Amino acid sequence: MTSADPADVGLLGPVWAGSAAEAATGDAAFVRAMLDAEAALTRAQAATGLAPVSAARAVTAAAGAARPDVRGLALRARSGGNPVIPLVADLTAAVAEQDAASAPYVHRGATSQDIWDTALMLVTRRALEPVLEDLERMARALAGLADAHRATPMPGRTLTQHAVPTTFGLKAAGWLTLVAAARARLATVRAALPVQLGGAAGTLAAFHAFAGTAPVTGAPAREDEAGAETTGMARPRPAGDAGDVGVRLLAAYAAEAGLAEPVLPWHTLRVPVADLAAALAFTAGALGKIAADVLVLSRTEIGEVTEGEGGGSSAMPHKSNPVRAVLVSAAARQVPALAGVLLGALAAEDERPAGAWHAEWQPLRDAVRLVGGAARAAAELAEGLRVHPGRMRDNLRLTGGLVVAEHLTIALAGPLGRDEARQVVTRASRRAAQDGITLAEAITGEPTVAAALPAERLRDLLDPARYLGSAPALAGRALTAVEEDKP
Amino acid sequence: MTSADPADVGLLGPVWAGSAAEAATGDAAFVRAMLDAEAALTRAQAATGLAPVSAARAVTAAAGAARPDVRGLALRARSGGNPVIPLVADLTAAVAEQDAASAPYVHRGATSQDIWDTALMLVTRRALEPVLEDLERMARALAGLADAHRATPMPGRTLTQHAVPTTFGLKAAGWLTLVAAARARLATVRAALPVQLGGAAGTLAAFHAFAGTAPVTGAPAREDEAGAETTGMARPRPAGDAGDVGVRLLAAYAAEAGLAEPVLPWHTLRVPVADLAAALAFTAGALGKIAADVLVLSRTEIGEVTEGEGGGSSAMPHKSNPVRAVLVSAAARQVPALAGVLLGALAAEDERPAGAWHAEWQPLRDAVRLVGGAARAAAELAEGLRVHPGRMRDNLRLTGGLVVAEHLTIALAGPLGRDEARQVVTRASRRAAQDGITLAEAITGEPTVAAALPAERLRDLLDPARYLGSAPALAGRALTAVEEDKP
Amino acid sequence: MTSADPADVGLLGPVWAGSAAEAATGDAAFVRAMLDAEAALTRAQAATGLAPVSAARAVTAAAGAARPDVRGLALRARSGGNPVIPLVADLTAAVAEQDAASAPYVHRGATSQDIWDTALMLVTRRALEPVLEDLERMARALAGLADAHRATPMPGRTLTQHAVPTTFGLKAAGWLTLVAAARARLATVRAALPVQLGGAAGTLAAFHAFAGTAPVTGAPAREDEAGAETTGMARPRPAGDAGDVGVRLLAAYAAEAGLAEPVLPWHTLRVPVADLAAALAFTAGALGKIAADVLVLSRTEIGEVTEGEGGGSSAMPHKSNPVRAVLVSAAARQVPALAGVLLGALAAEDERPAGAWHAEWQPLRDAVRLVGGAARAAAELAEGLRVHPGRMRDNLRLTGGLVVAEHLTIALAGPLGRDEARQVVTRASRRAAQDGITLAEAITGEPTVAAALPAERLRDLLDPARYLGSAPALAGRALTAVEEDKP
Amino acid sequence: MTSADPADVGLLGPVWAGSAAEAATGDAAFVRAMLDAEAALTRAQAATGLAPVSAARAVTAAAGAARPDVRGLALRARSGGNPVIPLVADLTAAVAEQDAASAPYVHRGATSQDIWDTALMLVTRRALEPVLEDLERMARALAGLADAHRATPMPGRTLTQHAVPTTFGLKAAGWLTLVAAARARLATVRAALPVQLGGAAGTLAAFHAFAGTAPVTGAPAREDEAGAETTGMARPRPAGDAGDVGVRLLAAYAAEAGLAEPVLPWHTLRVPVADLAAALAFTAGALGKIAADVLVLSRTEIGEVTEGEGGGSSAMPHKSNPVRAVLVSAAARQVPALAGVLLGALAAEDERPAGAWHAEWQPLRDAVRLVGGAARAAAELAEGLRVHPGRMRDNLRLTGGLVVAEHLTIALAGPLGRDEARQVVTRASRRAAQDGITLAEAITGEPTVAAALPAERLRDLLDPARYLGSAPALAGRALTAVEEDKP
Repeated sequence: MTSADPADVGLLGPVWAGSAAEAATGDAAFVRAMLDAEAALTRAQAATGLAPVSAARAVTAAAGAARPDVRGLALRARSGGNPVIPLVADLTAAVAEQDAASAPYVHRGATSQDIWDTALMLVTRRALEPVLEDLERMARALAGLADAHRATPMPGRTLTQHAVPTTFGLKAAGWLTLVAAARARLATVRAALPVQLGGAAGTLAAFHAFAGTAPVTGAPAREDEAGAETTGMARPRPAGDAGDVGVRLLAAYAAEAGLAEPVLPWHTLRVPVADLAAALAFTAGALGKIAADVLVLSRTEIGEVTEGEGGGSSAMPHKSNPVRAVLVSAAARQVPALAGVLLGALAAEDERPAGAWHAEWQPLRDAVRLVGGAARAAAELAEGLRVHPGRMRDNLRLTGGLVVAEHLTIALAGPLGRDEARQVVTRASRRAAQDGITLAEAITGEPTVAAALPAERLRDLLDPARYLGSAPALAGRALTAVEEDKP
Repeated sequence: MTSADPADVGLLGPVWAGSAAEAATGDAAFVRAMLDAEAALTRAQAATGLAPVSAARAVTAAAGAARPDVRGLALRARSGGNPVIPLVADLTAAVAEQDAASAPYVHRGATSQDIWDTALMLVTRRALEPVLEDLERMARALAGLADAHRATPMPGRTLTQHAVPTTFGLKAAGWLTLVAAARARLATVRAALPVQLGGAAGTLAAFHAFAGTAPVTGAPAREDEAGAETTGMARPRPAGDAGDVGVRLLAAYAAEAGLAEPVLPWHTLRVPVADLAAALAFTAGALGKIAADVLVLSRTEIGEVTEGEGGGSSAMPHKSNPVRAVLVSAAARQVPALAGVLLGALAAEDERPAGAWHAEWQPLRDAVRLVGGAARAAAELAEGLRVHPGRMRDNLRLTGGLVVAEHLTIALAGPLGRDEARQVVTRASRRAAQDGITLAEAITGEPTVAAALPAERLRDLLDPARYLGSAPALAGRALTAVEEDKP
Repeated sequence: MTSADPADVGLLGPVWAGSAAEAATGDAAFVRAMLDAEAALTRAQAATGLAPVSAARAVTAAAGAARPDVRGLALRARSGGNPVIPLVADLTAAVAEQDAASAPYVHRGATSQDIWDTALMLVTRRALEPVLEDLERMARALAGLADAHRATPMPGRTLTQHAVPTTFGLKAAGWLTLVAAARARLATVRAALPVQLGGAAGTLAAFHAFAGTAPVTGAPAREDEAGAETTGMARPRPAGDAGDVGVRLLAAYAAEAGLAEPVLPWHTLRVPVADLAAALAFTAGALGKIAADVLVLSRTEIGEVTEGEGGGSSAMPHKSNPVRAVLVSAAARQVPALAGVLLGALAAEDERPAGAWHAEWQPLRDAVRLVGGAARAAAELAEGLRVHPGRMRDNLRLTGGLVVAEHLTIALAGPLGRDEARQVVTRASRRAAQDGITLAEAITGEPTVAAALPAERLRDLLDPARYLGSAPALAGRALTAVEEDKP
Repeated sequence: MTSADPADVGLLGPVWAGSAAEAATGDAAFVRAMLDAEAALTRAQAATGLAPVSAARAVTAAAGAARPDVRGLALRARSGGNPVIPLVADLTAAVAEQDAASAPYVHRGATSQDIWDTALMLVTRRALEPVLEDLERMARALAGLADAHRATPMPGRTLTQHAVPTTFGLKAAGWLTLVAAARARLATVRAALPVQLGGAAGTLAAFHAFAGTAPVTGAPAREDEAGAETTGMARPRPAGDAGDVGVRLLAAYAAEAGLAEPVLPWHTLRVPVADLAAALAFTAGALGKIAADVLVLSRTEIGEVTEGEGGGSSAMPHKSNPVRAVLVSAAARQVPALAGVLLGALAAEDERPAGAWHAEWQPLRDAVRLVGGAARAAAELAEGLRVHPGRMRDNLRLTGGLVVAEHLTIALAGPLGRDEARQVVTRASRRAAQDGITLAEAITGEPTVAAALPAERLRDLLDPARYLGSAPALAGRALTAVEEDKP
């Protein structure tokens, strides 16, 4: 190591360092995916009669065997603005060494963006696989928590204050629905990731030229001598595109690359990237919500949950920090901004934009990594989370019963009327807070209450565990809903 | 008007001023939606036996007749942080005036967020209707352009430079796929917008209390004297939630409000808002791509399209600006940032977060408005766009044939070999650029070319209209795909 | 009110509704500022001999008396994309009614952007005045807290866990430095807000034409017959620009409008807007940090501070929510995204960009409003904050002494050696946590400790109030630093 | 290379690959900076009597000689959430090997964040040096262009359309002011980058304990038995902080590390990071504006400038792409979003936040790199830019004189009156556009014009080079302003 070594190896990304998502999105993985894309393209050309089978074999073999100098490619990428250009040069040379006749078939008819976008899709497709597994693992753990704790009372908190009781199971069930929703969105997007193929400007024209197909002669819709303006008016449509050599190649390429077939070349129709951005930001936010809750519940003063194995401190031997929740929370703060760059890149002019395309690469890789790392950390967090029902019960007592003041008010509304009930409870609540006594103690001083409610009923009303409403039922409902969504 | 009048009436939003989306998302529309939500909630309580039918009638009538002072509500919203609190006070008073016995049923059991979130969904559902119509209208116009111009040649442009020819129909077809994708995403999200109902902390407990149902007694999963820690372990599940009064009310409320029924109260499970954010950012980006293209093609030097009716200038009488494209482009720059705030709000702690919820309101309204205004402007743009095939043809000649250099290179690769062909064309291209002659003129100076290609073949090769590749077929393919996606 | 009334009156912005910043940034305030800009421009032309004094008087009078229909302007703004065009028409008509000869001097030589940008700067300058006052008020309140509580012990919290003690005064001193830094940044930016004046494309050419000054004949640097390419090479410079009519007008306009004089027209050199964006985002973040701390310290379980007057709840009579902190926190979540749009608008092409300029208006107004509202709320929060030293003391006891484990370890390192000291304290800390005893109790069971430290010394070491380090001194240092920065 | 190699070496960042900013911000540079920070801290402790000089020597030597396994540190960083913890372990071991007595002085009294934040500042300080040099280089090149072309006429373009003429020198002068402003902002922020030192919770308490200084006993401002609430009221202040051991150490640490001394530990007072974010986003936007202009002017149809050495294409041998402008533009799209994350991190709770701090690392590094790479590319672009006055002149003719219609209107207003003049010119402009003739030809058909203006005067009025207004003077003014701002 020298301090000028430019390699990054995860030092600034503890959330994803060492994760499967990191490895699957490293520079080397991109180079591998570009080589795979080139090989698939030559095979697709062979499959559609545009190249000899021997060329497909030669390119596939050379691409498979290639071990390019990644740093060298990065540096040589500067002059043309992307790494495909130097890679093609190297791959062509490698093929030529083994089989000179096959060399011209490397990258034939393609543009850099065809290969880079396909590589981006391959990398993403591969990187999302372990992410989906981590989300699945996490969903199982959360389902267990939701089920076990559906009736475990804890304070419901709104705007930082105790509101009324809820259950930890309902909270875990809510987390579960978010994880299931994130998983569904990511899986859907992943399945639709397409190959890219359009040639120089998205018309696949070079492939027609190589195929020697009779050129279509273009003609404006209606054209007179003056180059008259036309507004679009419908004309009868030709039969279809099935016989078009470009369209056939697109299908073959998708099959060879193991990606979806797009309707059109999408050099500046960035639906796949935008959909990825949305699904990744959603997932980061879903995990971020869970982390936010764990961070609150882990506070020294609250102590209702503990990360299975907290992180140490360089200064304080006694501390056990909720490190995974912290790292997930940090990831959740970054991904929406990265997604914003990607969504903004939809507005890409021309057949290849002057900036919007290049601006996607790093944010997309970073978003996949952050989500991948967050999914790993959150899955570990969910599996190891220790829940402390005793602390929840203690905390429910902290307000001296105010957490169930609503219950009491409703019960008193029958005998006393709504307004009177509200006044009595408000008065008792204030006294309880001022004198440091419980609501139970304060309310018994109200003469109308004793008459209205027998002591036992009053005790029940002031028991947080008897004011859980639909919480257990809702937890069950969420468990069922998530289960049934599964194939 | 005094300069201290706080009312905003669209001065800063020319893209949406006067649009249906603006009216549907104004402060008054929010007040109307809150009143509708309150009325629907009382009717739902009546439908599930939690309130008398007379109360449902009284609240519905009073809510329907109410014309609240919107500014007054805005000012009174400050102390509690949201406008539901003062609205409920006013509505209760209005009901009491007509039917004192019904007044206690106003907002009974609900929390402010139940009403505000439901109002947010109602407003959004209503506002998206004209947006979807504008997208539909736009899709029809674009389909017409794609069809009419599928073989109209124009320069394909990459990184600002002419690359190879494409057709205007393929470009319009690409726009069409984006609009269709945006419409599909928005329609899906709109159909799923749910009511919000959870009560104080998402457990629907107050409704149980009002119903007088026997309370479920909460108990931790496994609990010993020390409040032992537990990790979630699955237990047998209870039968279901069908009989739960809260769950029944949720269904009735959804039916009365005309919104979807959520699986859980979503006070801090913000899936609907996140999905809206993603769909709105997608739509803004899709329209922004089209605007970006129109802006390039409208440039004085390019002139391939013109907005049907351009905007005037305060300084220059001759100018005709592509105003709609400018406004759509401006909208597309804002929505991803707003979506980022909304996606970031997913990470909301507790049962109501201390900031993340309040941070959603304005960005969501603004995003709907910007998209609504952009959809209107873009639909007008698409319907009125004037296309100039003559200028496209002229521009194709600008590079003196270099735009089809690829075609020539491929054709020469047969007779001359790939490397030689590339060298010959590169040499001729440079000469053409330096000497201000056409590629045709330069290439005829190359001795090997004349031998390899007859003059007529050379002329065809250098005709941009004969190098369109799959462009016409792809345009047709997109038209078919969009048509078949329709129900 | 009908639900289709498009006027917004603050319903979605409780943080700014009713604030001075809201009124100063309303649509009517923009119209007023545009009128002021037009009047100032005519006066400036009179001052530089480009218009008769009578025209300056007539335009100023008409602009002062004008009460335009703001909604009408908003709707008429659509066709040209900005509201200056219809406003100029109205103002010209109004002047013509009183003094036909003066009418041609309305807006003479200017472009819409000159007026709108100047209005934007006027509005911002006016709106920031009360914001600076609120920050000043807040700084005074925080200085009082920092001073009074410089030695008030409370738990220092890191990653949600108690770390070592700090003081509330140090925390308040930190808040103070942020507020002072925000105030300084906003004041600097506000003082530099410039007028805009460039005419149609930033050359002020029309003013030269009106002045009848001999036109400068443009000529390329070096030009030969072929229109040869040149790269910039330095040539001797002409004397200066003092006599240039455009430059003189720029200075006069700045003086009349009460804004700074820019070096160049800044139609697409958006330094003022970018600097505003940065200062507003900084301020929002500074206030957001304070709100974040208050929200933590207000939690039911922590209770170390209370908002002077908390917000009520529609469901729970006993709740007192930290509403101001919530609203400030919500504002802090939005402003960075709006600032991102504004900073992104720096990259504006040409002499007026096709989208980037229009995209600034709403985000800039919203950012000013959010910051203005947040400053008001935060000032009220700071002035009314109730601090509870007793709860802080109680909370310091919550870990049974672990919060001063570091102190003990250091003290034992002398007699026992560093490693042994760390092991002893770690062992005792674990025992304390496991057995629910204090660190004091656990450590006395360690045989080596009793020998090393007398009981009294041990008691002092375990007193959190005796482990405050530089906290009081740092609080004082910050107070001094902030005071001395003041003019 | 295997595809699972996690090292990133710049493949996704052609804008910064191989740049000085890349090397200065690599993982290895961070490790080096952490080691430098640890060494400086021990030296500072020696300088203030908290450690023996021998320890300072030993730690400095070991830190200087250390060549840690960066990947290993990255992986070991996961459990504690940051890489300082494993680094301290390694450094302590290394010191112990050479001088066991010095080992306890490694990291003594510090917390991880002290070292990491100091390293972040050191890395940034080092990385910005070449960035400032590139901006300086660029400013020189732009000054040359502004000077040489101050009177070179070209079309001024607004909303994509020709407006009136401007000069290329004025455009370059505007670019120059942006670059100068960016440089000034970055230099100011860089000079103020501070060390971080606070210990476990920002009180520097451990250093007091090590120093054996008599502890300050904390006491609340006013405290009674009930732990009464207090609101801050000013009390007389103690003399100063000069004698405080923590404060003295802070000063010594700043001196040893070569960074500024902060007023307070800034663990959650993130002014330096927020200021960096703003200055970096400003710089990216400034460079992005220049790139945006170059991209427009480089278009095939416009051709007014060319990048000195354009980028090649993998598909089209003739293409010469404005690659540097594309890469700068791509960078400008990313930095505002990263800055938004950093500005959002200002709202950091407690004495160390649970996510906001960790969320800063990667965005800050990426922003520095993107700006560093963009500055290099933009400097090369400015130095090599080829300007084509001939094309500018040709383009000025494109509208057949409409680009000077404003000039004509003003000149005719004298003889004809304002309204008549406007009508005449508008009519002629429309005719010119419709009939494909020049404005000169169209206007001579207007009977009133011939009478009003002699032919020679008309010819001058229709010469774009005679309607440059203040453009040359403004270019000179900007050159002077930038020059005088220099120290």
